[in-house]
Amino acid sequence: MINIKDLMRDLNEIRIVSPLVHNITNYVVMNNTANALLAIGASPVMAHAAEEMEEMASIASALVINIGTLSDPWIKGMLIAGKTAYKKGTPIIFDPVGAGATFYRTDTCHKIIEECHPSIIRGNASEIMALIKHDIKTKGVDSSEASDTAVEAAKELAVTTGAVVSISGATDYITDGTTVMAVTNGHEMMTKVTGLGCTASAITGAFAAVNRNYLMAATEAMVVMGITGEVAVIESEGPGSLQMNFIDELYNLDETTIIKHIK
Amino acid sequence: MINIKDLMRDLNEIRIVSPLVHNITNYVVMNNTANALLAIGASPVMAHAAEEMEEMASIASALVINIGTLSDPWIKGMLIAGKTAYKKGTPIIFDPVGAGATFYRTDTCHKIIEECHPSIIRGNASEIMALIKHDIKTKGVDSSEASDTAVEAAKELAVTTGAVVSISGATDYITDGTTVMAVTNGHEMMTKVTGLGCTASAITGAFAAVNRNYLMAATEAMVVMGITGEVAVIESEGPGSLQMNFIDELYNLDETTIIKHIK
Amino acid sequence: MINIKDLMRDLNEIRIVSPLVHNITNYVVMNNTANALLAIGASPVMAHAAEEMEEMASIASALVINIGTLSDPWIKGMLIAGKTAYKKGTPIIFDPVGAGATFYRTDTCHKIIEECHPSIIRGNASEIMALIKHDIKTKGVDSSEASDTAVEAAKELAVTTGAVVSISGATDYITDGTTVMAVTNGHEMMTKVTGLGCTASAITGAFAAVNRNYLMAATEAMVVMGITGEVAVIESEGPGSLQMNFIDELYNLDETTIIKHIK
Repeated sequence: MINIKDLMRDLNEIRIVSPLVHNITNYVVMNNTANALLAIGASPVMAHAAEEMEEMASIASALVINIGTLSDPWIKGMLIAGKTAYKKGTPIIFDPVGAGATFYRTDTCHKIIEECHPSIIRGNASEIMALIKHDIKTKGVDSSEASDTAVEAAKELAVTTGAVVSISGATDYITDGTTVMAVTNGHEMMTKVTGLGCTASAITGAFAAVNRNYLMAATEAMVVMGITGEVAVIESEGPGSLQMNFIDELYNLDETTIIKHIK
Repeated sequence: MINIKDLMRDLNEIRIVSPLVHNITNYVVMNNTANALLAIGASPVMAHAAEEMEEMASIASALVINIGTLSDPWIKGMLIAGKTAYKKGTPIIFDPVGAGATFYRTDTCHKIIEECHPSIIRGNASEIMALIKHDIKTKGVDSSEASDTAVEAAKELAVTTGAVVSISGATDYITDGTTVMAVTNGHEMMTKVTGLGCTASAITGAFAAVNRNYLMAATEAMVVMGITGEVAVIESEGPGSLQMNFIDELYNLDETTIIKHIK
Repeated sequence: MINIKDLMRDLNEIRIVSPLVHNITNYVVMNNTANALLAIGASPVMAHAAEEMEEMASIASALVINIGTLSDPWIKGMLIAGKTAYKKGTPIIFDPVGAGATFYRTDTCHKIIEECHPSIIRGNASEIMALIKHDIKTKGVDSSEASDTAVEAAKELAVTTGAVVSISGATDYITDGTTVMAVTNGHEMMTKVTGLGCTASAITGAFAAVNRNYLMAATEAMVVMGITGEVAVIESEGPGSLQMNFIDELYNLDETTIIKHIK
């Protein structure tokens, strides 16, 4: 279980330092991701052109690579940024969106993992399983598997890659290959808002920017996502208002709310 | 007029089966389109890279092609996906955004229609007219014509292409070249929310995934769009809240609401 | 100070004429920018492909170029559109997002300014300073400087380029190199919503479409942005609801509200 004092220290650190989080992410979620990072107190930048990747990745405190709407020119940018961040010791969060849905996605994931050495890999169950087993088919970008079934694959992926692996689902599991953290906060309606998984990766980036214990940073991020989602659902009539309330609640998140909701 | 029992059967089918709807659409609306598909119960995927189009289109239950922010690499992806879907008998919904505004758009539309044989073409009045007549100028992506004036062009386009043609406007008209269905649900404020036409195309995709009578599928989609919009407007202070409430109402749409509002 | 009668005349003109505003902008803000332009009464089009830039820029009443997520194919489109608009005397608003963060951005800015001769350059303080001084580092896309510190740079930039320069910040400053207008409306929470600066550029485009006194058009736009933001903040629980309420309030903005809030 995570320590609330550590979580609050890191959350406050994000709000004070406002770390620059460089996102190379998909078209679907860019607006929400940027707003979530602003709401938690970080400073987001979205940039992907190969021509500026070395420079942009150099000034950032964390790099988030998300292949949701990948194409060759973007992959080129991802690899340059990832290698730059790795060389500088900047935390890299990798979101293998749709791994297992097409060979292009799965192959790109393996290339990014090999060349950029992500610090944290965050995906849904079938994405994580697809990075280990070759016979998993992801349904587009939605998981075809429950998160529990992916824990062993996550541990194996963590051992193989040296990354912390974070699986989102009804229960979130975060592992460094040895320890497995479980986060049961969250709400089912969150799966009806597009890109909250991508937001989780970005928020993980914000925590990794201020805490180099990546197992802790990734877990804290999932706790914050889950609690924020739970609180936001209470005031929501459906996924439209949930998307909006999520940002408001992330902005207003305080220790009292965290203590009340943490499991 | 459509049959409410058929509509409810198809709506429930979408919610149970959660068909994968593959969208190659524009940057402006991707988030909203994905959220609308999730809200109605479908599973959206946004992907455009030529390298993965055959595979992605193969696993999808419907393909939505929308040229709102087109460019050559995207057109390449659209054509591969469209040909793949056509070969497999997967329904293809084509949204000719801005046809008639530039030659590039109009030419691309003709190429997509010829090579991919869309099942349903859904656009505004001047877009539909531009695909038949050469002297129509679309004002950017907004219609310069009322929907009524495009009915004859829609019938001609349906006969020429073999597609069902769906025109959105104050009254929506849907035709297979012989029968013309008219849908009078909807609200004027919907024209002040960007991309609700694109959402209509995506929702049409969800219905086409579960009902191969494309005249019916396209009509049901427009009824759902219109009723959802009407109900959402009631609680909205302007187009900002309408965009959000639209998603909530689509998520909560039930038979009682449909019976109360259908015209 | 601006004249409220002039402002209302221009606002009403936008609502009556609904000028087509052509945006070549970034992926993060496209949806919001389009919605803001619709809310104020303009007709937005988002298009970037080099193949259609001459034609699209020719039918538009204003062109907004924003380099937020720039890449080479987009820069190509920007330059064609900008040269076309310049030749036709169409107002060009240029938003140098992230100038000073990477050489790629700063260099692109200089190229666009030289080749397209923007009518209005609108950015934050460090972006404007980066276009004059070479030693300013923008923190991604967020300003590292207060707006006051950039007034001299703005005046110099205005003189050098012939453009009106508009700096957004706690106080907005707008200058043609001689006169400096100051707008103190606005609210700090607006900086927590991604892309409200980009929205300001788009709204500036709408005003420039109806008023060729660019110093006035740019100032009116910033007054409208500031007042709308202030009113929207009152009903907002955080930046999520602010983003939504901003669109509603822009749609509902009337003379009474403007008179009540203008400073």
